[in-house]
Amino acid sequence: MLKPGDTIGILGGGQLARMIALAAAPLGLRAHIYAPEGDNPAFQVADAVTSAAYDDLGALEAFARAVNVVTYEFENVPVATAGHLASFVPVHPGPRALGITQDRLDEKTFISGLGIDVAPFAAIDDVAGLEAALERIGRPAVLKTRRFGYDGKGQVMLRAGDDAAAAFAAIGRHPAVLEGFVPFEREVSVVAARTEDGRFAAYEVTENEHRHHILHRSTVPAAVTPSVETLARDIARRIGEALGYVGVFAVEMFLVVVDGTQSVVANEIAPRVHNSGHWTLDGARTSQFEQHVRAIAGWPLGAVERLGRVEMTNLIGDEAESWHAVLSEPGAHLHLYGKAEARPGRKMGHVTRIFPEA
Amino acid sequence: MLKPGDTIGILGGGQLARMIALAAAPLGLRAHIYAPEGDNPAFQVADAVTSAAYDDLGALEAFARAVNVVTYEFENVPVATAGHLASFVPVHPGPRALGITQDRLDEKTFISGLGIDVAPFAAIDDVAGLEAALERIGRPAVLKTRRFGYDGKGQVMLRAGDDAAAAFAAIGRHPAVLEGFVPFEREVSVVAARTEDGRFAAYEVTENEHRHHILHRSTVPAAVTPSVETLARDIARRIGEALGYVGVFAVEMFLVVVDGTQSVVANEIAPRVHNSGHWTLDGARTSQFEQHVRAIAGWPLGAVERLGRVEMTNLIGDEAESWHAVLSEPGAHLHLYGKAEARPGRKMGHVTRIFPEA
Repeated sequence: MLKPGDTIGILGGGQLARMIALAAAPLGLRAHIYAPEGDNPAFQVADAVTSAAYDDLGALEAFARAVNVVTYEFENVPVATAGHLASFVPVHPGPRALGITQDRLDEKTFISGLGIDVAPFAAIDDVAGLEAALERIGRPAVLKTRRFGYDGKGQVMLRAGDDAAAAFAAIGRHPAVLEGFVPFEREVSVVAARTEDGRFAAYEVTENEHRHHILHRSTVPAAVTPSVETLARDIARRIGEALGYVGVFAVEMFLVVVDGTQSVVANEIAPRVHNSGHWTLDGARTSQFEQHVRAIAGWPLGAVERLGRVEMTNLIGDEAESWHAVLSEPGAHLHLYGKAEARPGRKMGHVTRIFPEA
Repeated sequence: MLKPGDTIGILGGGQLARMIALAAAPLGLRAHIYAPEGDNPAFQVADAVTSAAYDDLGALEAFARAVNVVTYEFENVPVATAGHLASFVPVHPGPRALGITQDRLDEKTFISGLGIDVAPFAAIDDVAGLEAALERIGRPAVLKTRRFGYDGKGQVMLRAGDDAAAAFAAIGRHPAVLEGFVPFEREVSVVAARTEDGRFAAYEVTENEHRHHILHRSTVPAAVTPSVETLARDIARRIGEALGYVGVFAVEMFLVVVDGTQSVVANEIAPRVHNSGHWTLDGARTSQFEQHVRAIAGWPLGAVERLGRVEMTNLIGDEAESWHAVLSEPGAHLHLYGKAEARPGRKMGHVTRIFPEA
């Protein structure tokens, strides 16, 4: 168990690391950020920083020896890096959660193995395999690289008439998974936290609207039935349990309606704080960032109670130029990430708005 | 007007600087802390730091040239320092507010010159003057050094029979002010913000309970009548206006009851964010720290709306050892300041608790 004055090591220098560091400070903890050279806005709020590559074993060891626990802001941390760090200091979430969630095939297999509904899927290693899988799963279907995809990168939709060979080429002929398209009504997610000794707390189901494969807006409460609310949180609980997970994670799900009844299909696990949980910064009693710190510190989890109807809107690229208008809006909370350059598609910040309950 | 990416320079490395820096980050601003060597917990969350004395003109100039605006966390910044910085970069609040509030006599004269009730007072330079003033003002009365007093330091109470010479010796024979004792019911304060172009916003009146001359607990709403609520905020507005103040400040007041009617007597002005405003961190739509940043940045002020009944309790000295119990309490918010050593009387952190409106 950590104590005030201890240091949290965070791999990654972006906005998630930055918001974890900002949440750690009021709890009396220091943040040490480890990230390769680049624009690392988390450095601006950290007590200590290391600029080094994720395979620099010497730098990793020095970092591990300088901190009391290690966590990360993104799931593509090399498992070897996490394993190396884990030989010196606790790493939360652990290499197992990282390994499974880095590979879409392993992840889908893991989730469905828990008896949780997922889209029909198949492992794809070549065009012949893809064609056979399309026969079985049908179209439309989505072909996704097994590794290193996010925000819609590394995936392609196959509709009637689309050529399998061209699709496989489009994702670089990497080992892949084909997923049957789920005719979903809405996308939802559950952000939850689990501690090493099995305590668990899930925020309310969040409804997510994407634009160009990037999260645009999250709203809470989601338009889901009470039984789906319960089911979705229970899915997160079972996944957290099966992973022996420590920290905050998110489960993205599709809301489907079959014969007039809502249900959910699990899509993917993010082993980290998640964009769809940013609403908790102002909209919940405890933010997901503080919750993550509490969980990896071995501390009591905070209250997940919601403080109103909440809407979180991402500021992508030049949308961040609206900062002054946001500041002028009573009750809107501006969160800018301190990034140097507003490239198209880049998450520059977000806004939360809290409304009284209807 | 500042823009995201700009840097706020803060003089002082303690908890107030730390909380200003933590509030600046989500607004996209960087913090550069300037403080003499020592335990400077604000350094832990700053983008840049300067360790130098407040009279190091070279270091001050380099600091001023590295930032877009300068502010400070405590009122005892030498006026010469503020003036030197102001030749390079805007300094908010300005040297005038600093000068007046550094001297209890100037401050009392300034406040009463605005037609605001203060305790009867007299300038004291020697024992004879003290004896004469005691005749006029009566006892009990409080003798306070004109400069550099805080948390009850540099002051002594004179009750019937107390020796004037001994009292004057007790405060080091410094130039002083004698203040008539105000038989107050309660201590209250108003925390407010003002911008350069005269916009003003005051938080609700806060009721403050001191122990051993150190703030123990603040509660909001205060047990004051609507007319006192209005009067107290109006006093803050008039003081802010007369000082041409930019930033957050606090006015400490005594609540008195005369013939069954409440009124307030102004006691002192703090030209900075204030301990009695810490409840706004979780208990108001905009915290005093964010509000201060908005004000000195020339940005719109935030909403000051309260989010429930709020109680803020300081953690003094070893009271901070209760951190784990605080974390276990649903809805309590822990704020630790990252200080190395828990000396008696040292403010180590605070807790806010938000309750539904009665």
